[in-house]
Amino acid sequence: MTTKTLSAELLHKMDGYWRAANYLSVGQIYLFDNPLLKRPLTLDHIKPRLLGHWGTTPGLNFIYVHLNRIITEFDLSVIYIAGPGHGGPGMVANTYLEGTYSEVYPEVSQDEAGMQRLFKQFSFPGGIPSHVAPETPGSIHEGGELGYALSHAFGAVFDNPELLVACVVGDGEAETGPLATSWHSNKFLNPVHDGAVLPILHLNGYKIAGPTVLARIPHAELEALFTGYGYTPHFVEGDDPTEMHQRMAAALDAAVAEIKRIQADARANGFRLRPRWPMIILRSPKGWTGPISVDGKPTEGTFRSHQVPMGDMSHPGHVKILQEWLQSYRPQELFDPQGKLIAELAALAPTGLRRMGANPYANGGLLLHDLRLPDFRAYAVSVPTPGAVDAEATRVQGELIRDVIKINPANFRVFSPDETSSNRWGAVFEVTNRCSTAEILPGDEHVAPDGRVMEMLSEHQCEGWLEGYLLTGRHGFFSCYEAFIHIVDSMFNQHAKWLDVAGHIPWRRPIGSLNYLLSSHVWRQDHNGFSHQDPGFIDIVANKKAEIIRVYLPPDANTLLAVTDQCLRSRNFVNVVVAGKQPAPQWLDRDAAIAHCSA
Amino acid sequence: MTTKTLSAELLHKMDGYWRAANYLSVGQIYLFDNPLLKRPLTLDHIKPRLLGHWGTTPGLNFIYVHLNRIITEFDLSVIYIAGPGHGGPGMVANTYLEGTYSEVYPEVSQDEAGMQRLFKQFSFPGGIPSHVAPETPGSIHEGGELGYALSHAFGAVFDNPELLVACVVGDGEAETGPLATSWHSNKFLNPVHDGAVLPILHLNGYKIAGPTVLARIPHAELEALFTGYGYTPHFVEGDDPTEMHQRMAAALDAAVAEIKRIQADARANGFRLRPRWPMIILRSPKGWTGPISVDGKPTEGTFRSHQVPMGDMSHPGHVKILQEWLQSYRPQELFDPQGKLIAELAALAPTGLRRMGANPYANGGLLLHDLRLPDFRAYAVSVPTPGAVDAEATRVQGELIRDVIKINPANFRVFSPDETSSNRWGAVFEVTNRCSTAEILPGDEHVAPDGRVMEMLSEHQCEGWLEGYLLTGRHGFFSCYEAFIHIVDSMFNQHAKWLDVAGHIPWRRPIGSLNYLLSSHVWRQDHNGFSHQDPGFIDIVANKKAEIIRVYLPPDANTLLAVTDQCLRSRNFVNVVVAGKQPAPQWLDRDAAIAHCSA
Ligand SMILES: Cc1ncc(C[n+]2csc(CCOP(=O)(O)OP(=O)(O)O)c2C)c(N)n1
Ligand SMILES: Cc1ncc(C[n+]2csc(CCOP(=O)(O)OP(=O)(O)O)c2C)c(N)n1
Repeated sequence: MTTKTLSAELLHKMDGYWRAANYLSVGQIYLFDNPLLKRPLTLDHIKPRLLGHWGTTPGLNFIYVHLNRIITEFDLSVIYIAGPGHGGPGMVANTYLEGTYSEVYPEVSQDEAGMQRLFKQFSFPGGIPSHVAPETPGSIHEGGELGYALSHAFGAVFDNPELLVACVVGDGEAETGPLATSWHSNKFLNPVHDGAVLPILHLNGYKIAGPTVLARIPHAELEALFTGYGYTPHFVEGDDPTEMHQRMAAALDAAVAEIKRIQADARANGFRLRPRWPMIILRSPKGWTGPISVDGKPTEGTFRSHQVPMGDMSHPGHVKILQEWLQSYRPQELFDPQGKLIAELAALAPTGLRRMGANPYANGGLLLHDLRLPDFRAYAVSVPTPGAVDAEATRVQGELIRDVIKINPANFRVFSPDETSSNRWGAVFEVTNRCSTAEILPGDEHVAPDGRVMEMLSEHQCEGWLEGYLLTGRHGFFSCYEAFIHIVDSMFNQHAKWLDVAGHIPWRRPIGSLNYLLSSHVWRQDHNGFSHQDPGFIDIVANKKAEIIRVYLPPDANTLLAVTDQCLRSRNFVNVVVAGKQPAPQWLDRDAAIAHCSA
Repeated sequence: MTTKTLSAELLHKMDGYWRAANYLSVGQIYLFDNPLLKRPLTLDHIKPRLLGHWGTTPGLNFIYVHLNRIITEFDLSVIYIAGPGHGGPGMVANTYLEGTYSEVYPEVSQDEAGMQRLFKQFSFPGGIPSHVAPETPGSIHEGGELGYALSHAFGAVFDNPELLVACVVGDGEAETGPLATSWHSNKFLNPVHDGAVLPILHLNGYKIAGPTVLARIPHAELEALFTGYGYTPHFVEGDDPTEMHQRMAAALDAAVAEIKRIQADARANGFRLRPRWPMIILRSPKGWTGPISVDGKPTEGTFRSHQVPMGDMSHPGHVKILQEWLQSYRPQELFDPQGKLIAELAALAPTGLRRMGANPYANGGLLLHDLRLPDFRAYAVSVPTPGAVDAEATRVQGELIRDVIKINPANFRVFSPDETSSNRWGAVFEVTNRCSTAEILPGDEHVAPDGRVMEMLSEHQCEGWLEGYLLTGRHGFFSCYEAFIHIVDSMFNQHAKWLDVAGHIPWRRPIGSLNYLLSSHVWRQDHNGFSHQDPGFIDIVANKKAEIIRVYLPPDANTLLAVTDQCLRSRNFVNVVVAGKQPAPQWLDRDAAIAHCSA
C-alpha cells in the first residue's frame, strides 16, 4: 500500500480524533463515573446494566472523522446517516467532540462534569436511547428498525443540489429487502438538481450472532453486484489503522472527485446519461480496537463484539480488560485535565453549520418553506343538488395536485408504486413526468429524467424516499392502493414515533406532514379479488397518538379537495386520506364541503 | 442464431400449444360466449366489464409450454410459481390444457361447453379471481401482492431434494424490497438435501404504466448484477416466436444440465463450495402476440398491454381487432370442433402427477407428515409454589424446539432474522447450526451448510421461506422480536387469506400452521428504546377470522411449553405466541399449565 493521501501529521491527528470518539463510545456504554480514568477503574465506576452496541461503533467513528476531513478540505455540506443506528454511542460521541451536542444540551458540557453526564445518560433511566434518535443532533434516521438508510438518504438529496449524504449501510442491514432494492435509487437521481449520496457499505462481517451474506461472497461477486447496481465500488479493507486511514482518505478523495465531475458535467451540459456514482466498501473488524479476547474467546473481529464484549463486569479480570481497553486510546493525550478535547484535535472538526451535527438539512424544519397553494375551491365540482352528479374524486384531486407540482417546482414531489395513473392522478402528467434517469424508450409515456413523480414498484422505497424528503424540509404525497399500504406498516410506525419524539424536542423544528392517498380501496376491489382487499391500515394508524395522526374519509370530490388542502398545510402529522377513484355521486357543494371539513 | 435445440416439428407443436394457451387466456379476459369463434364475433359475446391482466400472460404461457418439454424430456418434478400472479388467465389456461383443471372442476370440461364456462367464470361474479389463487391447481403462490415469489420458491425446495421450482419474477416485482433481497437465498440452499430453484426474470419492460428498472439498465450491468447475486444468467431475448422457442429451449437445456451436475456432484461428494446456480433472463414484449396497435397507439410491447389492451369494446373497430387477435392463434388448428385440444398437442403435456397443475408439492397437505413430538411435559420447570422460582420461558421452550429439530431431521426448520440466540433458543445449537452455504470462517459459531436454523436479516425472507416450506407440506417456527414483526404484516395478511380460502376448497389439504414466537416484547424493551416497542401486531392478527388465528400469551414457561406443543400439532392456523425471554416468576406447575391450555 503506497498511497499517501494523508501527511504523517494529519494521519496522526485523525487517528487521535478517532481514538477520542472510540474512548467516548466505550465510556458511554460502560462508565458511570471516573470518566477520565483519573483513578484506577473499579466496579463502582461501571454501570449496573450494560446496554448499547459496541460492534458497529468504531467503524461509524472511523467514517465520521474521515468525513470531517473531506468536509473541511472541499467545503462540502454533508449529513451522516448511520444505517446501523444502534451505533448510537458513536454519533453522540462525535457530535459531542465537534461541539454541537453541548450546544443543544448545555448540561453535557465539554469538560469532565459534562463527560460524566454524557456517559451516565446513555441508555440509562431518564437518559437517552442507545440508538441514534431524534434526540441526536445531525440525525434524520433512527436506524432502530434496519433497512431504510439508503431510501432516506436518496429522499434527502432529491432537490437539494448542494447536499451530500454519507450513508453507512450495515452488512446485516443490507440483507433486508428494503435496503436491497434501495441501491437502485440511483436510477432516480438527477445530478442537475439533486445532491449526491455516498453509500458506505460497512462489511464488519456479522449481524447479531451469525455472519452476513455480503461479507461471505467472493470479492469478484461483491464487485459485480455493486457494478450491477450501477456504482463504482471503492474498496477499503484491512485492520491496521495507519493503512486504513490512508486507504479511506484515498477512497474518499476519489469519490468526491467523481461526484464533483458528475455534477459539474450535468449542471453545465444538462442531463445526458445516468452516471455511475461512486460508493465505498469498508471491510473492517467488528468491534475494531476492542478487546482482542475475553475469557479466552476471540472478541475483536467476531460476533461477540456486537453488543457489549463483556457483559458481566463482576467476573474476575473484566474490570482490568476494560481499564486496558480504555487506556489503549490514551485519553490523556486526547483530553486536557479538565476533560476538553485538546485544541489540536478539535481543530479537525468542521465549524459552524458544516459540522454534521449542526447541518440544517438534518433538522429540515429549519429549511421548510410553506407550499404555494392554489385556491382549492377553484377545482370544485358543481353539485346543484346532493347526489345529482357523479365524479371521480381522486381525478378531481389530481388537478389540484397538478397545480401544486407546477407552482412548487423544487420542494414538492409525488411518490407511488406506479399507481399514479391508476389512482386517477393523470392530470399531473400535464405538467411533469415520471422520473427516470435510466434508459427511456420512444414508447414510454411521461417519463423524463427530471420528472417529479417518483415511481418505483416498492412501497418501501416510496415511503423511505418521502420520509427522507420531508425530514430535510420539503413536502410530498404518497399515493397507494389501500390494500398494499400494509407493506409499510412498520415504517409508518417508526416515522410516527419519530414525529412524536421530535415534537417534544425544542430544537427540532416541525416538518411537512406525511400524506397518504389510499385509493382503489376495499369496496371497489371485487374484481382484483381477496388479495387486494384490506382496509386494516386505519387500525394501525388509529393506534397512534392523536397528536400525530389524522385519518380522513372524505365522501366526495369537494370534501377531498378541502382535505387535501388541509394536509398540504399541516406540519408534523401523518395524514391518511382514503378516497374513491370510481365515479360516485357527489354530495356536498363547495361551501358545504369546506364547512364539513372545518367542523 | 444457429442453435437448433428443437426439431422443426416439435417447435411447430410447441408453438401451437402456446397459441392455444394464449387463445384461452384472451378468451377468459374478453369472452362470455362464442368460445370457439364459430360465429362472427359481436359485442354480445363479450363481457360487459373487462378485467384481468393480458400483458404478462403470453410470457407466462411461453414459459409453461417450455417447462412442459423439459419435464417430459428429463422426467423432472417441477412446480411453477408465477410472481406476476395477476397473469392468472395463463395459469388457468395451462392447467386446463393439461387436464388438471377439469379434474378438480369437472364442470369446466375439455369441450366447448367447458371452454365457455372457463371463459365466463374468469373475474366474474361467482367465478374465479383474476389472479393465481388457492383455487388454481398447481399454485402455492397468489402473487396478488408482489414480492414474495422467490422466497416462496426457495422455501418450497428446502428439504425437497427432487423438486425443481421454476419461479417467474416480473421485472416490476423485482423492484420490491423483499424480491430484491430474495435472490440471496442461494446462500442458504444446499444441493445435498435441497431441491433447486430456477429463477426466470421476465423482462417485459413495464410495470403498470411506467418502465421497470431492470429492463432499462445496460446488458453488462444486468449481467453483473446477477453474477453478483451468485447466478449464471442465460439470456433469452427477442420477439420472433420461432427464434425465441429455440433460444428458450437451449437455455432450459443448459440450466437443467447445470442443476443436474451441481446436484450429482453434491450428492456424491458432499457439500464443498456454494455452486453458481443458473437463472434465465427472458426479455420479451409485454402483451406479446397481442394487438400491435389500438386506436393508433402502439400496444404490443408497451405498457398499454398491461391489463386489457382495449377496454371500451363498444368503440368502433375494437370488436374487429379482438376477432383478428383471437383468430391470429388459428384456434381451428388447435381445438377440434367439440372444443378439445387436438391429440397431437395434448401429447406435449406431461402426464399424471408430473403435470404442474397436479404436482403434489403444490398441494403440500398431501405430503404432510405429523411431526414426531417429544412429550413437552418432560421439559417442565418445577414450580413448587406459584411465584417461587424464576425461569426464562423461551429458554425452556428452546429445549423442546431443540428436540423437535433432532427427531425431525427433514421436515422442520426454524426461521429468524438472527434472533434465535437473542430470543434464548440457544439450546437448538446443541443439535444443529445456522445454515449457510456461503464462506464460513473459523471464528463463526454454529454455522454450517446443513444447519436447520435459517437466519437472514430479513423478516420478509424468514416469512416467505417459511410460507413456502409450509405450503409444500412441512412444519416450522418463526422467531422474531415483537416490534419488528410488523414488517411482515402484509405477508401475514396474505397468508391468512390464503388459508381462509384454501380451507374451503375440497381438494386442498390442510397444511402445517404458521407459528410465530414473538419475544423481546414491548415490556422489556426499555433499553432499546421506543423504536423497539410495538405490541400492535396482535391487533392486525385479531382482525382476521377466528377460524384461522390463534393468539397465545402464555404467562410462564410451563404454559409456553403446552402452547408450543399445541401449535406444532395444529393445521391451517396462524399461531402467534408472545412470550418473555427474561427471567420471570413461574406460576403454573406442569399439570396446572396443561389444564390452563386445554381450557
Ligand atoms: C428490521 C430489523 N430486524 C432485526 C433487528 C435486530 N438487530 C439489531 S442489530 C442487528 C444486526 C445488524 O447488523 P449490521 O447491519 O451489520 O450492523 P453492525 O454489524 O454494524 O452492528 C439486528 C439483526 C433490527 N434492528 N431491525
Ligand atoms: C406490492 C404490490 N404493489 C403494487 C401492486 C399493483 N400492481 C399490480 S401489477 C403491477 C405491475 C407488475 O409488473 P411486473 O412484475 O413486471 O409484471 P408484468 O409486467 O409481467 O405484469 C403493479 C404495480 C401489486 N400487485 N403489489
